[in-house]
Amino acid sequence: MKKHITECHKRIEEFIHRTPILKSQQIDELMGCNISFKCENFQKAGAFKSRGALNAVLQLSDEQKKKGVCTHSSGNFAQALARAASIAKANSYIVMPSNAPQVKIDATRGYGGNISLCEPTLEAREATANDIIEKHGATFLHPYNNWEVIFGQATAAKEFIEDINIPMDYLIAPLGGGGLLSGTALSAKSFSPNTKVIGAEPINANDAYESFKTGVFVESNNPDTIADGLLTSLGDITFPIIKENVHDIMLCSEDSIRKAMQIIYSRMKIVVEPSSAVALAIILENKDFFANKNIGIIISGGNIDLDSFLLNFN
Amino acid sequence: MKKHITECHKRIEEFIHRTPILKSQQIDELMGCNISFKCENFQKAGAFKSRGALNAVLQLSDEQKKKGVCTHSSGNFAQALARAASIAKANSYIVMPSNAPQVKIDATRGYGGNISLCEPTLEAREATANDIIEKHGATFLHPYNNWEVIFGQATAAKEFIEDINIPMDYLIAPLGGGGLLSGTALSAKSFSPNTKVIGAEPINANDAYESFKTGVFVESNNPDTIADGLLTSLGDITFPIIKENVHDIMLCSEDSIRKAMQIIYSRMKIVVEPSSAVALAIILENKDFFANKNIGIIISGGNIDLDSFLLNFN
Repeated sequence: MKKHITECHKRIEEFIHRTPILKSQQIDELMGCNISFKCENFQKAGAFKSRGALNAVLQLSDEQKKKGVCTHSSGNFAQALARAASIAKANSYIVMPSNAPQVKIDATRGYGGNISLCEPTLEAREATANDIIEKHGATFLHPYNNWEVIFGQATAAKEFIEDINIPMDYLIAPLGGGGLLSGTALSAKSFSPNTKVIGAEPINANDAYESFKTGVFVESNNPDTIADGLLTSLGDITFPIIKENVHDIMLCSEDSIRKAMQIIYSRMKIVVEPSSAVALAIILENKDFFANKNIGIIISGGNIDLDSFLLNFN
Repeated sequence: MKKHITECHKRIEEFIHRTPILKSQQIDELMGCNISFKCENFQKAGAFKSRGALNAVLQLSDEQKKKGVCTHSSGNFAQALARAASIAKANSYIVMPSNAPQVKIDATRGYGGNISLCEPTLEAREATANDIIEKHGATFLHPYNNWEVIFGQATAAKEFIEDINIPMDYLIAPLGGGGLLSGTALSAKSFSPNTKVIGAEPINANDAYESFKTGVFVESNNPDTIADGLLTSLGDITFPIIKENVHDIMLCSEDSIRKAMQIIYSRMKIVVEPSSAVALAIILENKDFFANKNIGIIISGGNIDLDSFLLNFN
C-alpha cells in the first residue's frame, strides 16, 4: 500500500500543488484543541480531486488517451478530470447535469472538457455517459469508486503527515462517496499508524454513517445539506476500505456546518466549500472528545458559487 | 528613511506575521500581466493596520501606556490598536460608531479594548474621544495621519520587496486616508527605487485622486462605495508624502471592484475586504497600461461581515 501511494505521488506531484498547512491560534482557543488544516482549497482546479484524476489519467495507454476519458459529475471531479486529461493530452467527455452552476460548467470547459448537459438525474447521467463511451470508446473514470483515484486522493494525507510538526491524534476528512476518506485512511495506516482517521458527515446525509455502524451498505436517500459535495453514496470499493481502516464516522448538523464555515472564513480568511467545513463542525459538536488533542483536518476544496454572496453584498 | 523603516520593522516583527506572497496563474492569464499579492488579510487582527498600531504603541513611555491610548475607528484600526495595546500592556479606549458591525465591536472587545459607542458622525467621534483623553490623559493615535503609524504600514512593502523574486515595475496599494500608500511609497523609495507606486481609489470616493491631480487638498465628500475602508480623507502628513513619492493614482468603478473581488475569491480562494480588491480593479480597467508588467498588489485586509453571505447561502 505504502508503495502504491508513494509511486502515485511521484507520478502526479509535478502537476499538483503541495498545498500549505495553515493554523489559527483563535480557532485553537475556540475549540480547545490543536488543529492544523491541509488546504486543498488551494489545489489545482480548486480541490483534492485533481490528485485522483491525474493518477488515473496518467496511467492510460496512448490509445486510451486518444479515445478519451469520460465521467459524470456536477462538481469538482468534472474540472479535475478535464484538467488532468488536458495535461495527459487526452480527450475528456464530461457529463454534467443541466442544473450545475454555470461557473463550474465554464471552468470545466476552460480546461478543455467536452461537455454534455443532461437531465439532473442519476439515470440520465449514466445513460448519457454510456452513449459517449459507446460512440468514442472512451474510458469511464468513476469520481471515487476507483483504486487509482483513491491512491491519488491518499497523497493529500501523505503530504500532511510528512509536513506537519506534531504527530496527529486524529485526522478528519469529509465523507461523501468516500474517495478522500479512503485515501486518507490508507495513507494514515501506511505513514502514521497511530493516527486515528475519522469521517465527517452531515446528519442530513448520513448514509455512510448508517452503513459504517450497521456494516450493511445504505444508499444515500434524498440528502438535504448545504454540503453539496457530500451527497453521494459509498461505493463497493470505498465502503470496505472505510469499514476496515476508519476509526469512526461522526455527524454534524447544518447549523454547525454554517457556523464552522463562518469561523473558517472570519478567522482564517480562506474560501472553502461547505463540504470542507463539516470536519470542523464535528469538532464544534464534540469539544470534550477532542479536547487538547492534535488534530488534522483536510479542507477538501474551495469551489463555491459566490455570485449570490456578491449580489447581496452592498 | 530606510533607517526609520528598518528600525520599526525590528520593533514590531515578533508581534506580526510575515504574511505570504501568493500568485495565481489564472489571474495572470486573465489580466495579461504578472501579479504577486502580499496577503495582509492573513495579518494579525486581519489587516495591515496591526503594523502601524504596534509601532506607535510600543514606543510610548510607561506612563503613557498606563494612561492608555485612544482612537476612533469603525474598522480595522480599532482591532489593531486594541491588540497592540494589550501586547504593550497599555489600556486602550476605542471610540466606535454605534452602527459599526457587531463582529468588529466584539473583536475589538476580544482584544481587550474599552469601547465607547457614539453617534455615527465625525463630530460625535471626535467629541467622545476628546472626553476620554481629558478624563484619562490617554494618548490619541490617529489611524493614518501619524508618522509612526506610517512607518509601521511601510513594513508590509518592505517585506514584499525583500521576499519577491522579480523586481516590481508597479506596486499598487488601496488608498483611503493614505497611511498604507504613504508607507508603501516610502518603502519603495528606500528599498526598490525603480518600482513605481500607484494608489488605487474608487471613482465614488475620489477625493485623493482630485487632491493629487490638482495639488490642492480635497476633502472626502459623501463617498458611496462598497470599499468601506477607503472612505476617509487624506491627512496633512499623508498628502505631502503621497504628492512627492507616488507615481500616480488610478480610479475604478464599483462594478470593477465587485468583479475583482469575485476573481480573487474564486481563483485565489482567499477572503479579502472590498477595499483590498480595488488594486486589482484598476488593472482590470487598464489592461493595456499594465500589459506584461511585473506588478505587486498589497491585499490590505480580510475583515468582512459574512453573516449576510451565510444567510443567503442555501
